[in-house]
Amino acid sequence: MSEVMDAADAEHAHGYIEHKDALLKRLRRAEGQVRGVQRMVQEDEYCIDILTQVSAATKALERVALELLDDHLRHCVASAAAEGGAVAAEKLHEASAAIARLVR
Amino acid sequence: MSEVMDAADAEHAHGYIEHKDALLKRLRRAEGQVRGVQRMVQEDEYCIDILTQVSAATKALERVALELLDDHLRHCVASAAAEGGAVAAEKLHEASAAIARLVR
Amino acid sequence: MSEVMDAADAEHAHGYIEHKDALLKRLRRAEGQVRGVQRMVQEDEYCIDILTQVSAATKALERVALELLDDHLRHCVASAAAEGGAVAAEKLHEASAAIARLVR
Amino acid sequence: MSEVMDAADAEHAHGYIEHKDALLKRLRRAEGQVRGVQRMVQEDEYCIDILTQVSAATKALERVALELLDDHLRHCVASAAAEGGAVAAEKLHEASAAIARLVR
Repeated sequence: MSEVMDAADAEHAHGYIEHKDALLKRLRRAEGQVRGVQRMVQEDEYCIDILTQVSAATKALERVALELLDDHLRHCVASAAAEGGAVAAEKLHEASAAIARLVR
Repeated sequence: MSEVMDAADAEHAHGYIEHKDALLKRLRRAEGQVRGVQRMVQEDEYCIDILTQVSAATKALERVALELLDDHLRHCVASAAAEGGAVAAEKLHEASAAIARLVR
Repeated sequence: MSEVMDAADAEHAHGYIEHKDALLKRLRRAEGQVRGVQRMVQEDEYCIDILTQVSAATKALERVALELLDDHLRHCVASAAAEGGAVAAEKLHEASAAIARLVR
Repeated sequence: MSEVMDAADAEHAHGYIEHKDALLKRLRRAEGQVRGVQRMVQEDEYCIDILTQVSAATKALERVALELLDDHLRHCVASAAAEGGAVAAEKLHEASAAIARLVR
C-alpha cells in the first residue's frame, strides 16, 4: 500500500467496518466449510460430494469479496473521487485491478 | 436506466468514449471468434479445439467488460461520487451489481 | 491435435453432432449479442447497459462450452476410456486441461 | 449419492486417494488463508489488501477443485465408462453438473 493511500486512509474509516460482524460470520462459515472439505478428504468421501462442498466454500468467499468491494467503492473510492487528483486516480486504478483479479 | 442517471449522463460523456476505437476493434475480433466457432461446429471439428476457441472468445469479452468497467468507474462513478447524494449512491449500487454479474 | 487423437476420432463421431443445430442456434445468438454490444458502443450507450449485454454474451458462450464439454465427455472421453491405454489417458488429460481453461 | 453410485464405488477407490496428502496440505493452506482474512478484517486492514488475500484463498480452492475433478475423471468416470450402461451415464451426468457448478 503506497503512502498516498495511507494519507487517505487516515481520514476515512474502511467501508467494511459497519458490517464487520456480518463479514466475520461469513468468513468463519467459509473456514468451517474448508475444514469440512479436509474431513471429507480424510474420510475418503465421494469426489463429487467433496466438489460440491468446495464450490460452496468458493461461493462464500466470492460473496465476501463482492461485499468488501462494494464497501470499498462506497467509502474509500467515493471519498477519494470527491477529492480528486492523484489519490483518486490511484484508488480507481487499484479498484479496477482488484475487480480484474476477482473476475479471472 | 433511471431518470436520475439520465441527468448525470447529460453532463458527462461516457468514459469509454476515449478508446471507443480500441473497444470496437476488440469486439469485432470477438465477433470473428464466435463466427469461427460456428464454422468449426459446422465442419465437425474436434470438440477440444472448438472449446479452446470458445474460451478465447469468452476471455476477449471479459477483457472488454473489465475495460468498460474501469472507464465507468473513472468517469461516471468518479464524477457522481464527487457530487455525492442520491446519484452517487445509485451509481455505486449499479456498479457493484455489474461487478457481481461479471464475477458470477 | 495429436495423431493418437486422430485415430480415435476416425472411429467415433464427435458427441456434439446430435445437437449441432441447437449449438449453432445458440452461437448465432451469441454472435448477435456481440454485434449488439458493438452497436451500443458506437451509439454511445450507457456503460452499465453495455456491460449487461456483454455479460449476456459471455454467459451464452459459457453455456455453449459446458454443452460441448458434456458431449465430449459422453462420447469421445467415454469411448476412449472404454478402450483404455494411451488414448484414454491423453483424452482425460486433454479434457481436464479444457475444464481448467473454462474455470479460470 | 445414489445406490447406483455406491455399487460402483465399492469396486474402485476414489481417484484422489493417491495424492490425499498433497490435497490436504493445499486445503490446510487455504484454511490458513481464510483465517488470515478474518484477522485482517478484525485488525481493520485496508480493503484492497484483504481482497488480495480473499482472491488467493479462492484460487487455492479452485486448484483443489480442478485436481479433484481430474482425479475423478481419471478414476471413477473412466472405470464407469469402461463398464458402460446406467452407471456410466449417471457418472458422466454428475461430472458435467459438477463442472457447471465450478464454471458458474
